[in-house]
Amino acid sequence: MNDRSGGALPVAWDDVASAAERLEGVAHRTPVMTSGQFDALTGTKAFFKCENFQRMGAFKFRGAYNALSRLDPAARKAGVVAFSSGNHAQAVALAGRMLGIPRVIVMPADAPAVKVAATKGYGAEVVLYDRASGEDREQMAARIARERGATLIPPFDHAHVIAGQGTAAKELIEETGPLDWLFVCCGGAGLLSGCAIAANHLSPGIKVIGVEPAAGDDAARSFRTKTLVRVENPQTLADGARTNSLGSLTFPLVPAHVHDFLTVTDEELVEAMRFLWERMKLVVEPTGALATAGVLSKRLATQGGRVGIILSGGNVDLRAAAKLFA
Amino acid sequence: MNDRSGGALPVAWDDVASAAERLEGVAHRTPVMTSGQFDALTGTKAFFKCENFQRMGAFKFRGAYNALSRLDPAARKAGVVAFSSGNHAQAVALAGRMLGIPRVIVMPADAPAVKVAATKGYGAEVVLYDRASGEDREQMAARIARERGATLIPPFDHAHVIAGQGTAAKELIEETGPLDWLFVCCGGAGLLSGCAIAANHLSPGIKVIGVEPAAGDDAARSFRTKTLVRVENPQTLADGARTNSLGSLTFPLVPAHVHDFLTVTDEELVEAMRFLWERMKLVVEPTGALATAGVLSKRLATQGGRVGIILSGGNVDLRAAAKLFA
Repeated sequence: MNDRSGGALPVAWDDVASAAERLEGVAHRTPVMTSGQFDALTGTKAFFKCENFQRMGAFKFRGAYNALSRLDPAARKAGVVAFSSGNHAQAVALAGRMLGIPRVIVMPADAPAVKVAATKGYGAEVVLYDRASGEDREQMAARIARERGATLIPPFDHAHVIAGQGTAAKELIEETGPLDWLFVCCGGAGLLSGCAIAANHLSPGIKVIGVEPAAGDDAARSFRTKTLVRVENPQTLADGARTNSLGSLTFPLVPAHVHDFLTVTDEELVEAMRFLWERMKLVVEPTGALATAGVLSKRLATQGGRVGIILSGGNVDLRAAAKLFA
Repeated sequence: MNDRSGGALPVAWDDVASAAERLEGVAHRTPVMTSGQFDALTGTKAFFKCENFQRMGAFKFRGAYNALSRLDPAARKAGVVAFSSGNHAQAVALAGRMLGIPRVIVMPADAPAVKVAATKGYGAEVVLYDRASGEDREQMAARIARERGATLIPPFDHAHVIAGQGTAAKELIEETGPLDWLFVCCGGAGLLSGCAIAANHLSPGIKVIGVEPAAGDDAARSFRTKTLVRVENPQTLADGARTNSLGSLTFPLVPAHVHDFLTVTDEELVEAMRFLWERMKLVVEPTGALATAGVLSKRLATQGGRVGIILSGGNVDLRAAAKLFA
């Protein structure tokens, strides 16, 4: 299964392969870890791709760098704009610094001070918006981009971003060989789409599963109903998966490359985090533990299979995380 | 500097090399991690040997397996006895299971239930002793060994244990090439002695530094005074370094192979843990963060140097650790 859509899709394997060339020697080739305890618990042979060890602590660096590196000299000079309160902000901030591209990051005025500081720490200009102002952050970012002639870099709905994220699965399967399953967390499905494209190409017959928080199951419902479903302001620990809906690029990519979806509760997410932290000694953020929680749920017949799991990131405030384990 | 004692020492490089052969394909060859942020903070180029990813979560597996694998058939059949409330208990329990050797672990009656369960989980017989009974755990373990004809495996003061622990530094330097410094945590100095032997052999001119908690600085004082100093019941977060004194083997090995000692406070230890967890995404136990805290303290002129750091283990109760970061 390389393409079940029948039509032209915005991202293909060649784009992922090309992104991998851009990222060679720039992104970390993150380690793949295994756990005998996890295998015994789940009846699988599991391989964890540790994107928590990626630059700035999450896979987002891959897509941001791939997108920024493809801007022409004039666009580089005019700079980029991104809206994010999370990992995408830091990814664009860092990639822009490495490439010498000015960047503005639009963040909510009530974003955690530590995240604002981290983004400024990478040398980005941070513009705060007030949630009560009536203008949403996407509109504000688009306006700033227009005013400055800068390029807007969206967090997931962008072909170069999606292709960059797919390099995580490419590296994983190049190291493990063919897999029966690949579990990937899903917010806007940039990571999921990119990884699914790579996985289907490199491991034909693989089943790619998107994992969402139960409270924010817009992608699962979009997948099942074949219509774009929105879930406003989902309440979940998985802050990276609070996206309201798939995007115009990921909506057609998902049914073409993803085989099924699972949802997990916040309680299951905390148990998965506990396993990753306590048994595997890996600091993984809530969103980053979605795929692990999906396998631990045993809702799909993975027993006996070789299973890839993307640990998408590790950026947590330890004070907040400590409360989860108290 | 291979031996500054002038006399015959109980462990030498050949013993470490021989232990490495025993451990090939049995112990994990743990990854070496780096951190641009740590290097920027300290002015060093640092390499972290991640023994938190070792089997049972700590370096202790290396020494225990090396010691148990060298028992003759009669001794194997009679079994082994160890006293420990921590990682050595689990190391002997696991190594014995892999080698088919019966083992009794003497643990305090008030040891955390999770540690007793983990040791039983590796199939060991656990005997609890009452701290108020008058008999200490070493005496009790020795008595059980006598009664059963079993072999006592001490946690650090044993040549095969020390040689096994040294393989951690051997692997590190084989991967990094020569280093200017090696920082190792110190309880009874089994890990420190073994690693110092390996480091001096593989990287002549290296300076090996033992790092102790300030409240339990018996080894540092023994090193400086050249007499065996005891510190009773030291109060420190670093539970693996609450040992009262060096042993009969490590006392002569330390001055022959170690260049200096540092102590760090519990506050510095928590800050080092915070860096390792939050920035490097590595779950490391308090004792495991001693060496990192030593480099972060900048009490030695490491600037500009290539620095090896042993992260000795990652076995923490998340509930307890959460309180440190609250």
